Amino acid sequence: MYQSLRRNYLLQGGLVALITLILGIIVLFSSETKERSTRSLMSEVMDLENYIIQSVNPFNIRHFLRELTKQPGLGGTAEEMERAEWIAEIWRQQGMDEVHLTPYTVLLSYPSPTQPNLVRLLNEDKVMWESAAKQKPLYAPEEALPSLPYTFNGYAAPGNVSGDVVYANYGRYEDFTLLAEKGINLTSRIVLARYGKIFRGNIVKMAEDRGAVGVVLYSDPADFAPNGSDFVYPHSSFMPPSAAPFGATNLGSGDPLTPFYPAVESAYRIPEEEASLLKIPAQPISYGDAWHILSIMEGEEAPSSWQGGLNITYRLGPGLVHAGWTTHLDVNNANTMATTHNVVGVIKGREEPDRYVILGNHYDSWLLGGMDPLSGTAAMLELSRVFLSLHDETGWRPRRSLVFIGWGAEEYGFLGSFEWTEQFGKQLSDRTVAYLNVDMAIEGNYTLRTKSAPLLTDAIYESAKKIPNPDVDEVAAGRLSVYDTWAARRPDPLEPDIPLMQLIASGSDYQGFQHSLGIPCMDTRYTYDNVVLGEPMYHTLYETFAVVDEIYDQGFHFHTAVTSLWGHLALVFSDSQLLPFSLVTYAEFIMKALANIEDDYGELIASQNISLEHFTDAVQKFNESASSFTKKLNTVDLKNPLAVRHINDQMMMVERAFIDPQGIPGRPHDNHVVTAPSKYDAYSGMPFPGLVDTLIAIKEAPAESHKELWRIFSHHLAAVTHFVNTAGKVLSDDLW
Amino acid sequence: MYQSLRRNYLLQGGLVALITLILGIIVLFSSETKERSTRSLMSEVMDLENYIIQSVNPFNIRHFLRELTKQPGLGGTAEEMERAEWIAEIWRQQGMDEVHLTPYTVLLSYPSPTQPNLVRLLNEDKVMWESAAKQKPLYAPEEALPSLPYTFNGYAAPGNVSGDVVYANYGRYEDFTLLAEKGINLTSRIVLARYGKIFRGNIVKMAEDRGAVGVVLYSDPADFAPNGSDFVYPHSSFMPPSAAPFGATNLGSGDPLTPFYPAVESAYRIPEEEASLLKIPAQPISYGDAWHILSIMEGEEAPSSWQGGLNITYRLGPGLVHAGWTTHLDVNNANTMATTHNVVGVIKGREEPDRYVILGNHYDSWLLGGMDPLSGTAAMLELSRVFLSLHDETGWRPRRSLVFIGWGAEEYGFLGSFEWTEQFGKQLSDRTVAYLNVDMAIEGNYTLRTKSAPLLTDAIYESAKKIPNPDVDEVAAGRLSVYDTWAARRPDPLEPDIPLMQLIASGSDYQGFQHSLGIPCMDTRYTYDNVVLGEPMYHTLYETFAVVDEIYDQGFHFHTAVTSLWGHLALVFSDSQLLPFSLVTYAEFIMKALANIEDDYGELIASQNISLEHFTDAVQKFNESASSFTKKLNTVDLKNPLAVRHINDQMMMVERAFIDPQGIPGRPHDNHVVTAPSKYDAYSGMPFPGLVDTLIAIKEAPAESHKELWRIFSHHLAAVTHFVNTAGKVLSDDLW
Repeated sequence: MYQSLRRNYLLQGGLVALITLILGIIVLFSSETKERSTRSLMSEVMDLENYIIQSVNPFNIRHFLRELTKQPGLGGTAEEMERAEWIAEIWRQQGMDEVHLTPYTVLLSYPSPTQPNLVRLLNEDKVMWESAAKQKPLYAPEEALPSLPYTFNGYAAPGNVSGDVVYANYGRYEDFTLLAEKGINLTSRIVLARYGKIFRGNIVKMAEDRGAVGVVLYSDPADFAPNGSDFVYPHSSFMPPSAAPFGATNLGSGDPLTPFYPAVESAYRIPEEEASLLKIPAQPISYGDAWHILSIMEGEEAPSSWQGGLNITYRLGPGLVHAGWTTHLDVNNANTMATTHNVVGVIKGREEPDRYVILGNHYDSWLLGGMDPLSGTAAMLELSRVFLSLHDETGWRPRRSLVFIGWGAEEYGFLGSFEWTEQFGKQLSDRTVAYLNVDMAIEGNYTLRTKSAPLLTDAIYESAKKIPNPDVDEVAAGRLSVYDTWAARRPDPLEPDIPLMQLIASGSDYQGFQHSLGIPCMDTRYTYDNVVLGEPMYHTLYETFAVVDEIYDQGFHFHTAVTSLWGHLALVFSDSQLLPFSLVTYAEFIMKALANIEDDYGELIASQNISLEHFTDAVQKFNESASSFTKKLNTVDLKNPLAVRHINDQMMMVERAFIDPQGIPGRPHDNHVVTAPSKYDAYSGMPFPGLVDTLIAIKEAPAESHKELWRIFSHHLAAVTHFVNTAGKVLSDDLW
Repeated sequence: MYQSLRRNYLLQGGLVALITLILGIIVLFSSETKERSTRSLMSEVMDLENYIIQSVNPFNIRHFLRELTKQPGLGGTAEEMERAEWIAEIWRQQGMDEVHLTPYTVLLSYPSPTQPNLVRLLNEDKVMWESAAKQKPLYAPEEALPSLPYTFNGYAAPGNVSGDVVYANYGRYEDFTLLAEKGINLTSRIVLARYGKIFRGNIVKMAEDRGAVGVVLYSDPADFAPNGSDFVYPHSSFMPPSAAPFGATNLGSGDPLTPFYPAVESAYRIPEEEASLLKIPAQPISYGDAWHILSIMEGEEAPSSWQGGLNITYRLGPGLVHAGWTTHLDVNNANTMATTHNVVGVIKGREEPDRYVILGNHYDSWLLGGMDPLSGTAAMLELSRVFLSLHDETGWRPRRSLVFIGWGAEEYGFLGSFEWTEQFGKQLSDRTVAYLNVDMAIEGNYTLRTKSAPLLTDAIYESAKKIPNPDVDEVAAGRLSVYDTWAARRPDPLEPDIPLMQLIASGSDYQGFQHSLGIPCMDTRYTYDNVVLGEPMYHTLYETFAVVDEIYDQGFHFHTAVTSLWGHLALVFSDSQLLPFSLVTYAEFIMKALANIEDDYGELIASQNISLEHFTDAVQKFNESASSFTKKLNTVDLKNPLAVRHINDQMMMVERAFIDPQGIPGRPHDNHVVTAPSKYDAYSGMPFPGLVDTLIAIKEAPAESHKELWRIFSHHLAAVTHFVNTAGKVLSDDLW
């Protein structure tokens, strides 16, 4: 099925001459120094930096992507396993020190192979209309593969329900609140909502909590096809009317049946009815199909901000204009045990093999996965080739171990990665410097988009400054680096001189690393213009190789830029003698977060005679510790390996310090008190979510629950204060 | 109040000449090598070993003990604080690198200063007899100090209750079961039980669970004064009739109001009614007083094994022979917030200051604390003097940091130490090699008694072999070391050639280190003959300096032996290049524990079609990892500091591997799946208590609860299997 790439990547591409030249320099350098363990010369690091950045070959990435996207690879299927073995084989050929597959047997969710999920309009029992079972092939031959699954939402409960439909806009908290204010009860109703603002699981959860019996999700053309129906795939990168985006609806992370423990052979599995899965059916449809419902809806006209891009007047419902018609949802998904695999490849470090820098990307996809995730997989395979070629030619190894991982079944809730962090959490917590995720290398070609733990921010900015800009128009405009375009096109609203760095929240395989273990993480990609609400083909059939190759990234220069950035970060974190963690940035981030809480909720908190004094003290002390530690870094005896190790271990402990083994209030799996994802939207990042979510709840909840909520707030405030104090202490030489 | 000891310890004692000689050798050696960081010569370690062992000065220990025992020092009182400051001052004078006091404001429990707790016999409302409010002074002048508190049990609930008395022997699970079999209901009854076999809190808990309204506790002369009433304190070390042993009844560890978090200034405190404190009153009385009740008890004759040493026939009750008489319990304790302090002194390590070997002893006492704990405190102060004198004279520092700690409020449930492990748990878990506890240096002069994590076993045996035997008769019999007497007088029943090493369970300040953090711990002391059931003066007024100085340890040779052993272990763990952990011993211990479970419960487990196969595999793999790792130790490049660090870090992680952040079933605070204390007796150590306690519960519980219990068993079995697998993995160079 897949071709071996051994010959390809060695011979292909126009950079071979340059690589050879640089290799020559490195070999020369190496033979001069001989004893690598004494190396710490900046000049050499500079050569390595250039080598990594310039060796990434776009032709190889294209080739990898072409091979990977030839068939689907849904988590837990034989096709996923085939991809895993192909990746493993490439890494063996590239010369990894170790290649392993780690299997987990987990609860997955599949549509029926015979009975498609359908949304119907019924007149009494008569079917007046029904949605498409599959998305229509439009361009690439592989879109017509019979092995492609029926349209579904992962873990959506099976069910056969009818009800009056209600339009809920983006299905956000405020959208449901507006419906309630308008007196539109959701009990026994079917909610129709559009994708794009928050995680779909949160939409379904809020609908379920309000008594709805089913949810229909679609992507509105206003958000995903802004230039009209002629300007869509395959003529452009915008979403065609037949696109129905897949996606899982579960709110938890990892295997639903093995909370807290890995889904290994010896695991104990809780009964499925006790798993934290949503109980009502949900189903995605295309906007072409959604038109059939929305165009005949009854009820009040929706507010103007709720109007979408279909040429109709959007109404709230409930119900349809035709008497006797109801909306029907027929979902035939089944949850079933299946085995998914992570593929792990290791380049052992020379001086500190027991310190890990981990690079990860998932390789499972809902359908063909042309961008999500295989653009990232292709980037990872090229990046491993670059590092291993360097090793092959020069004997070079990074100071610390580099671990490359292809994750299985990410789309179902980070199953492969989360189970892995559960299985190896202790060792990972002890030894891991950073986890660098690329879920997809590109979802557009507009600018870089990065989510990060504050500890990694400065290093990412510095690396981005060194990556040549793949956008020729931008280069012509004088913006020579990836950083320059990022700063110009997506500046931080509060500090317009620097690019926007988003807080790492939820949404990909960093979940277990950042939020359970306290390992600083980042996730980067090239993204789309804000004209659309999300990657335009996100989770649809039309995420094909063609859309990447012909529309988004002709020549694969954007892939190359992301790969180079990823590689540069991997080099910096694995090979710098002192870890380039941005302690002061972290402290400033936390100070800002505290100021925001004071601004937004200070009066409310004060009204309860709750003092923020200890919290403020802790934040200030952390700030002082971060500053004085950073100054001290200049005085470290770099020739004393144990002194260097001591300093690095202290920096590594800062992120661990924020982990509360008890979890933040009500969420035992979300342990990071600073960066855990917000309860109201798992995708978004809001600092101190345990505090802020509770304050939001107090503002929204009836008065009789306030006492208990304030108690929860005070308890968590004390916990947060303790952990911020701990973060300050770990940077001190004293414990007490 | 306390004299400074600066001059004393420098000039006193007969060992000065010897010390000077050895110091001379060390100084010579040091000036030759100059660069201490390159030292790893066994010959020098041998010199250090001899120096530590031979420098311990019994006169100094005696002096420290004399000063410490001049007044009481109940946790959280001004007198406790005075002791803390005295210890801190000594450490400053001795030259510690750092000395700190760490305060915790916690819920403590005190008797009323005005209304003593009394047990009464009532005839209708008339008081026919009542127990003593305080223990009678018998010998030492300080026994009469007015500041000594009324007799009480810590955290026993206040209450004024009457009821028919029932005798419950040692208050063990099997004792309560026998009462139930005999149809003796405990509802509304007062339980009278004797101390000595299990932790008193478990007695009260089981009585409370069975409906009793109060508990009276006493120590029976059969167990604590076996040679009759003429042969007791002050004429011997046996317990006099007026001795009423104090002790706390709470089952939890640490401050009852701040579970999981440290009781620092910013802490959140749960309402007292939600704390895990027992609800019924309890009160200790002397056996002289207990006679007044036991001698007039009604009911069936107690079984022969229940008969004690009072010259009466022990009866089960319920009630008394005199019509209209009831037993009355008047407890006026109050729980109140108070501040206790730990005293922390640090000798910073030279090569690895960020690795800690921690030595601890609590310094609070129920009354005068002559043995528990001040014999240990005196030993610690002399040991710190030895290490700091060595540093003073030669500049020597251990490879790793040595941390000496005096804990506050241990008697109330390890409050000082547990809060400290909650406050600094992350750093401690990351950096601590071992915690070496000496709760009391002596509670007798018969043999060494040691509880230990299996990881430390071999090192303790090796150290004990090097400590000169303090018992002249034993030396005359050819048993030259502490080890020899230990092996002769307390052999392992299964391996009679070696001394009995007990598993570390509950009962002192190692609780948080071993069971919450997974830091290997040991606790050692010289103990009594098995003729008595416990330290004969344990927690009574008569634990005086006199009983130590005149009866137990004339010349303080036994103190000296324990101090030397402690010091030798501190040296070995802080200064060996490779940590002397007994991995193979740990693996054998676990294999034996598995075999015991199979022998005792194999059929029962098999009857449920539950397989132990994965667990057995994990145990075997751990055994193989331990063996091959131990072999690999010989091949480590000792000149490569990071390679040595890597190896040591792997060994440190083994104990951490057994920590389940979720806790063992039903006990979120007991996290060590191998060594957590048994549910039925917090003092005793039984491997895999989460499994075994559940199996015991299945054997005892009614059939309708079996399904849920088997489910708990299976779930925990999978968890245990995972953590044993983790322990094997951390010794491997690979993660997966």
